[in-house]
Amino acid sequence: MNFKTKYNQWVELVNTELDHLVRESELPQGSIFKAMRYSLMAGGKRLRPVLALAVNEMFGGDEKWVLPFGCAVEMIHTYSLIHDDLPAMDNDDYRRGMLTNHKVYGEALAILAGDALLNYAFEVMSEHILKENKRMVSGVRAMNLIARSSGVFGMIGGQVVDLESEGKVISLETLRHMHKCKTGALIKAPILAAAVINQVSEEEYQCLEIYAEKIGLAFQVKDDILDVEGDSEILGKPVGSDENNSKSTFVSIYGLKESKKMLEELIQEAITEIERFGERSGFLKELALYIMDRSN
Amino acid sequence: MNFKTKYNQWVELVNTELDHLVRESELPQGSIFKAMRYSLMAGGKRLRPVLALAVNEMFGGDEKWVLPFGCAVEMIHTYSLIHDDLPAMDNDDYRRGMLTNHKVYGEALAILAGDALLNYAFEVMSEHILKENKRMVSGVRAMNLIARSSGVFGMIGGQVVDLESEGKVISLETLRHMHKCKTGALIKAPILAAAVINQVSEEEYQCLEIYAEKIGLAFQVKDDILDVEGDSEILGKPVGSDENNSKSTFVSIYGLKESKKMLEELIQEAITEIERFGERSGFLKELALYIMDRSN
Repeated sequence: MNFKTKYNQWVELVNTELDHLVRESELPQGSIFKAMRYSLMAGGKRLRPVLALAVNEMFGGDEKWVLPFGCAVEMIHTYSLIHDDLPAMDNDDYRRGMLTNHKVYGEALAILAGDALLNYAFEVMSEHILKENKRMVSGVRAMNLIARSSGVFGMIGGQVVDLESEGKVISLETLRHMHKCKTGALIKAPILAAAVINQVSEEEYQCLEIYAEKIGLAFQVKDDILDVEGDSEILGKPVGSDENNSKSTFVSIYGLKESKKMLEELIQEAITEIERFGERSGFLKELALYIMDRSN
Repeated sequence: MNFKTKYNQWVELVNTELDHLVRESELPQGSIFKAMRYSLMAGGKRLRPVLALAVNEMFGGDEKWVLPFGCAVEMIHTYSLIHDDLPAMDNDDYRRGMLTNHKVYGEALAILAGDALLNYAFEVMSEHILKENKRMVSGVRAMNLIARSSGVFGMIGGQVVDLESEGKVISLETLRHMHKCKTGALIKAPILAAAVINQVSEEEYQCLEIYAEKIGLAFQVKDDILDVEGDSEILGKPVGSDENNSKSTFVSIYGLKESKKMLEELIQEAITEIERFGERSGFLKELALYIMDRSN
């Protein structure tokens, strides 16, 4: 099966599971489920759960066991976008070609919908783990890894640095630290969660960690490039927003040409890193190329 | 040891543990730790962790094992206050006699500090559980219970109903559902988490659940009473805010006299419910009375 077909199959699987996990409700608080679903089901690449599924398959793991962890990461990713878009944060009106959550549901409910998705991710994971008594240790380890990746030492930490860097010229070191946390941590999390769940060797774990760091950084470099030369219709959001928000990006620091070179190198290094897995790494290699070549 | 001394000892224990769990940091995202600590260490009654410790002691449980769960609930409680106070929500300037988080750190960082505390609660719990291999099942069950209590079916659900009820006359049924979720769920959570951790019998669990529901509702009725006749200096926030925000409260629906009667009945019922635990229930009985008689 070719890469694209496989990727789309997994996206389908993830969408079905998310749709199943977050239902509409007749409860008096029914609107929160609508607001959560609005952003959660708005499409998106589902890159993070697909990464979990791909690593899991590489080690012959059980798809049903890893899927809720991948979906939990997607919920966390989605909540971070909802809060990022708020007027007090980036103040964005559009996301994935749709009005942002607070534009549709108002700021108060958007804040709560974000909180709810973050909270629900842990509800889903802990409930899932309870059903699998035998695999409890690796389940809790995966959950802990995801928690740490999305918190103050990971994604939220990166958002804070991002917030406080606006309008300032920041060092390359700070820029890298910021992205390692802000985007990198939540790309690494599903990869390493799947590794933990499959009880891979320490060597294999380290190898996947390097792969994850390379594609995580590459993902951000590509994002910065797209913000300059992307198509706003395909992106589903306006281009040039980094410049308008006075944000330091790889492009603003290195220029477009150098950033593209950096992107290619990162992807090549990521691919080299997982050569050791031989044929089994086919999908992850193509995924790295997809991150480089994507248009949204 | 009398009630007050014991309560204060536990508050001290909780404060020390929270201070230990959320440290200041030299990381580039250091400000988020400051913002988290600002609200987390701002005093507060520590009612929720104290409830966990009290139930735990009643069953002769290990204090060190239950403490992080209680602290996690306190983090979740604190995050909910930070987000509740935001301009887009209740728009409050003071809390516990101090400026609210967004007044000190700005809206963006306050949103992130709230997110961070919620996330960190699960980081702390999952890490704690990993260290206790033998007690993992009850640990995950406790965490799941806390997650569910703070999410869309619990606290967040209640906040949504609260938000959407503003300026409307709501039925007593809706008011009760709202408070059962908004305040009740997170008072019940530490009680039941401690029960799960101590592997109590089903009968004991049900009994504690009823006690928790009674004092949870009583807590809210008392809050509504204090908002009318409390001392704003002792409360650390202005009185009359419910009326100013056009909120339906027990007092606005039933009047002051009837609300006080309801409060007394709930407390009496809670106390009767735990008679079965005999002398061991002494602290929980006094705690119920404290909820009725408190002035903040």
